[in-house]
Amino acid sequence: MTDRDFMRRAIALAARGEGSVNPNPMVGAVIVKDGKIIGEGWHKKYGGLHAEREAIASLREPAAGATIYVTLEPCCHYGKQPPCTLAIIEQGISRVVIGSRDPNPKVAGGGVKMLREHGITVEEDFMREECDALNPVFFHYITTGTPYVRMKYAMTADGKIATKTGASKWISGEASRALVHRWRGACMGIMAGIGTVLADDPMLNCRAEGGRDPVRIICDTNLRIPGSSQICRTAGECKTILVCGFPWLPEGKLEKADLPETGLCLEQAERSSRILLFMGHGITVCNLPDPAGKGVDLKKLMKALGSEGIDSVLLEGGGTLNESALRAGIVQEVDVFVAPKIFGGKARSPVEGEGVSLPDEAAGLIMLSVERVGEDLLIRYGFKESGNVYGDH
Amino acid sequence: MTDRDFMRRAIALAARGEGSVNPNPMVGAVIVKDGKIIGEGWHKKYGGLHAEREAIASLREPAAGATIYVTLEPCCHYGKQPPCTLAIIEQGISRVVIGSRDPNPKVAGGGVKMLREHGITVEEDFMREECDALNPVFFHYITTGTPYVRMKYAMTADGKIATKTGASKWISGEASRALVHRWRGACMGIMAGIGTVLADDPMLNCRAEGGRDPVRIICDTNLRIPGSSQICRTAGECKTILVCGFPWLPEGKLEKADLPETGLCLEQAERSSRILLFMGHGITVCNLPDPAGKGVDLKKLMKALGSEGIDSVLLEGGGTLNESALRAGIVQEVDVFVAPKIFGGKARSPVEGEGVSLPDEAAGLIMLSVERVGEDLLIRYGFKESGNVYGDH
Repeated sequence: MTDRDFMRRAIALAARGEGSVNPNPMVGAVIVKDGKIIGEGWHKKYGGLHAEREAIASLREPAAGATIYVTLEPCCHYGKQPPCTLAIIEQGISRVVIGSRDPNPKVAGGGVKMLREHGITVEEDFMREECDALNPVFFHYITTGTPYVRMKYAMTADGKIATKTGASKWISGEASRALVHRWRGACMGIMAGIGTVLADDPMLNCRAEGGRDPVRIICDTNLRIPGSSQICRTAGECKTILVCGFPWLPEGKLEKADLPETGLCLEQAERSSRILLFMGHGITVCNLPDPAGKGVDLKKLMKALGSEGIDSVLLEGGGTLNESALRAGIVQEVDVFVAPKIFGGKARSPVEGEGVSLPDEAAGLIMLSVERVGEDLLIRYGFKESGNVYGDH
Repeated sequence: MTDRDFMRRAIALAARGEGSVNPNPMVGAVIVKDGKIIGEGWHKKYGGLHAEREAIASLREPAAGATIYVTLEPCCHYGKQPPCTLAIIEQGISRVVIGSRDPNPKVAGGGVKMLREHGITVEEDFMREECDALNPVFFHYITTGTPYVRMKYAMTADGKIATKTGASKWISGEASRALVHRWRGACMGIMAGIGTVLADDPMLNCRAEGGRDPVRIICDTNLRIPGSSQICRTAGECKTILVCGFPWLPEGKLEKADLPETGLCLEQAERSSRILLFMGHGITVCNLPDPAGKGVDLKKLMKALGSEGIDSVLLEGGGTLNESALRAGIVQEVDVFVAPKIFGGKARSPVEGEGVSLPDEAAGLIMLSVERVGEDLLIRYGFKESGNVYGDH
């Protein structure tokens, strides 16, 4: 067994935390003495023990003189847990091999410094790329304060998300749909537009076994969502945020006191009473009109969600919301399912809205991976530059 | 070296004939004695020696008692060449290992029968799947008499073949475009619709090094193609067929005598004089109105092309022709390049026309392969059933 083998084991352990640790990163740790693993662990749950402490708790013999392999720089600050560096020092561990650097400004090299001050040999950036790949969400969230947004859509081989009559059940196969439910369980938020709600009346919950429902975020500029929709009817079971864009109301999460009782025109009064009703049923209503007064300010929405601790959003929009999201530059990843079907005709496509005029203005993507999912193909894309470039950006 | 190794060698040799042997199949042969290759060859050029005779011509020692590995059943009839079975028998070869069966009704097991009658051990269907994969075009053409049609298109990751303004240069990257030129060289025909000609004024030739230009087939129901188009201007260098659909003219390839000199209305007289002009410039004009009188009868066109010896057509249509081709059931393969770009907006999609109403009526595809081509992804699809099912079919 080599250093690489032990780090690979730590990476595999880290991955077991998927969907349970957000907005913390997934981390794994392996303690090795005389070429033998004597302890290992991973961060299992948000608020629970860190990977290093899990590994120490599992020790089968004293760790004095041992090496610890950890996928992320150990923390050196008091958060929900005392710092891991302290535990490593206490155990007499003599060598620490680290994958990712901690981008958290509260840590940022401080862990390594403290370890070295105690005479511990530290190797940094070991298999860093593989370790970084564990936590794209965490790295994005911790450095920007906004959620990592995955735009997901399923289209036919001729680029349609519905037939010409609007029929869309189903484009992708069962395996793809099951995978999307796992993604929903792994993301803290799920976002759709009012168009999708009106067309499909979706639940937007996680139906994967043991999966956690994400917070549902509906972009609904004029608050057209029907009270009879599944989203509204299940708001008691599953946290729901309606995002509207009324220039005549204060910005941000609306409270009862924000709604004027007088001086409203009929239309405003009607919206106002709907907002009250929704709030009464446990729905959060967030007012974020964009400066042009035509929609929702998606950038501000991402900041608001980030400060609520939402580190990741699965965007299951229709063509309009998808385009707005690209235009606002809030998307980090585009996940495209291509189904082995051809619909033909003039039908809805996955990204519509305004669109670009010239090919050079297009959002430029980088293919991250390609895999078969049942009969479908899943293509995952990232963006060429940090922050995507699209249209006038 | 095992039987499999020798057959693999024969397959590799066969593949060298790509683009030079149509409408013949690609075939390779390896002659082995005492575990050593003593001769090998492949069918190099249409009209030239068959693979078995090439291998025999290359023999470095007598082949008596040897084994020949050949990717396709040896022929037993007199065509452009005397039968290969005869040559095998004459050489005293004692064992023949065959990959594909010859679907040509003139051969169809006859070769094997003749060899066995001469006391030769024959093994059939050896690595047949790999050998069959060499010649999908040949197998289709020989059994149906119509060309193998590959529909090819390049679209963005959001399913567009142009921006909302119609700009389409370029969707796919350089590597993909170079590959398409190699395909053009390997196909005997290339087909596009008048819409594509009017929009892009393409040459539809093969610009790959050493490549052969395919016959250009333009579906142009009302003969709208401008004499100033690149297609018309280069008709002297590159065989060109215009396919129109005039119910008032005889069906099939038009000759001067087919064009009435009197009794035509102004519109008809105008078309008639254009047909004469085109013919005078070496362009073949083929009249194949569909029964509904609205377009070209693509099924009949395929039969006509097949009887002209065209075994393969690369269909580089726009959305309208692509849809008509699917609806007519003439397509054998769909090759989709997906470029890492997003255009958004309402823009042209690769298959348009009428389209289906319900997802179940869609053309059902089977993914044959997926590969990266430069920055693009190439997905190759075949059809679920022999003859595709689409729309009302």
